[in-house]
Amino acid sequence: MIASLQNAQVKNIIKLNQKAKERREQGLFIAEGRKMFLEAPSGWIHKVYVSESMEKDEEVMARARLFSRETVTDTVFRQMSDTQTPQGVLTVLHRPAYQEEELLKQPDPVIMVLEDLQDPGNAGTILRTAEGAGVSGVFLTKSCVDITNPKVIRATMGSVYRMPFVYVENVPSLKELFRSRGIRIFAAHLQGKKAYYEETYQGGTAFLIGNEGKGLTAEAAEAADTLIRIPMCGQVESLNAAMAAGILMYEAARQRRS
Amino acid sequence: MIASLQNAQVKNIIKLNQKAKERREQGLFIAEGRKMFLEAPSGWIHKVYVSESMEKDEEVMARARLFSRETVTDTVFRQMSDTQTPQGVLTVLHRPAYQEEELLKQPDPVIMVLEDLQDPGNAGTILRTAEGAGVSGVFLTKSCVDITNPKVIRATMGSVYRMPFVYVENVPSLKELFRSRGIRIFAAHLQGKKAYYEETYQGGTAFLIGNEGKGLTAEAAEAADTLIRIPMCGQVESLNAAMAAGILMYEAARQRRS
Repeated sequence: MIASLQNAQVKNIIKLNQKAKERREQGLFIAEGRKMFLEAPSGWIHKVYVSESMEKDEEVMARARLFSRETVTDTVFRQMSDTQTPQGVLTVLHRPAYQEEELLKQPDPVIMVLEDLQDPGNAGTILRTAEGAGVSGVFLTKSCVDITNPKVIRATMGSVYRMPFVYVENVPSLKELFRSRGIRIFAAHLQGKKAYYEETYQGGTAFLIGNEGKGLTAEAAEAADTLIRIPMCGQVESLNAAMAAGILMYEAARQRRS
Repeated sequence: MIASLQNAQVKNIIKLNQKAKERREQGLFIAEGRKMFLEAPSGWIHKVYVSESMEKDEEVMARARLFSRETVTDTVFRQMSDTQTPQGVLTVLHRPAYQEEELLKQPDPVIMVLEDLQDPGNAGTILRTAEGAGVSGVFLTKSCVDITNPKVIRATMGSVYRMPFVYVENVPSLKELFRSRGIRIFAAHLQGKKAYYEETYQGGTAFLIGNEGKGLTAEAAEAADTLIRIPMCGQVESLNAAMAAGILMYEAARQRRS
């Protein structure tokens, strides 16, 4: 049982929670909570930490026994945790490395492309909603928030385990790949002429979503085949980035089901 | 110029930022930032605080001169602020008191009803999206997060000034009011038979959205005329509450425009 904050493993967990650089260099990330442990793909799990109190939870312990694991005092666990009310189980996972191919293998995929998205809650919510809407994968520009940030992981509610993602240099670098697959690129943009529901998304579809404050860059908007508009009443200039993404993804899902 | 953290006004701002009880008792709330000051309805503004550095901003100062105002040193301003990178202007506003009538005066309104919603970001995002989608007003059960919480205010991006809201005891207490106006109540619910886009929202429409973790209570679901389902792929059990609300509001807006 680990009972000291000076323990090297404890110090490393805190570093992995706080620093994207550490996560990248070690190729590891952290997911907290019961659901995130129980849904984690076995092949991704590097190590499991449980608090003393969690040892009473049979469902968690039955699975934890299958992996390298440590028990930690409740006090130390609270310090390791990135949340205010830790659930008592913390999973260290290998960061997955998807190939572009895996995101594009379905026929007529719906793809999300996120450019310079900064808010962890938005990124996580987009992954969660993308899985719900049947999206095939998510591309992120390298300027986006790190998808293995603990706040992103939490907001995905487990979808990070199932929604393939790839970081790319920038949006224009994807244009050729999409064109060669017959995937049309739609950008949500204030200058879009048609409302988003006036286009059809039955064929291969990629939606571009820009930065929270600045929207899409000019280069990204130029890479799009079609600019679309989300109509806005009142004095609203734009929707929250995750909300805009969700409305587009669910419109594509609606059209494909109707 | 206020230069001391011991100043009574500074202490009161910090209290108003932190405590719902203080906001309720004083009938005041706080909105931070340039945009939130520039868009604030004049009649709501109680007092404006600007940092020393902000005094160079002509657009802000021209408006600030119209109201009771104080300049504060940059150091003290940082302590008064609820944000990590304060913009240098903080507005104290009177809490509006809407009547139910104001939310229902439009013909065939779209109304949101939030039950026990706890996350400030979700509540703020719903107000912002509601304005964008042309919603007439938002009812919240008294167990919901305080809509004048600084995190809610920030997430509304100004929509709090324009989207009328009323707190009510619970969802069933609204049933008679809606029935008498011919407003149909739809609840997003796992047991919904029809998908949300298979219903029509041309007439008066109220959407019920439940708590983030627990969803709608049984009493709220029973108060609905129709349960609807947001179809879900993969292993997603439910969408984020604000996302579900946004998809429904924009489906109603789409149907009304098509």
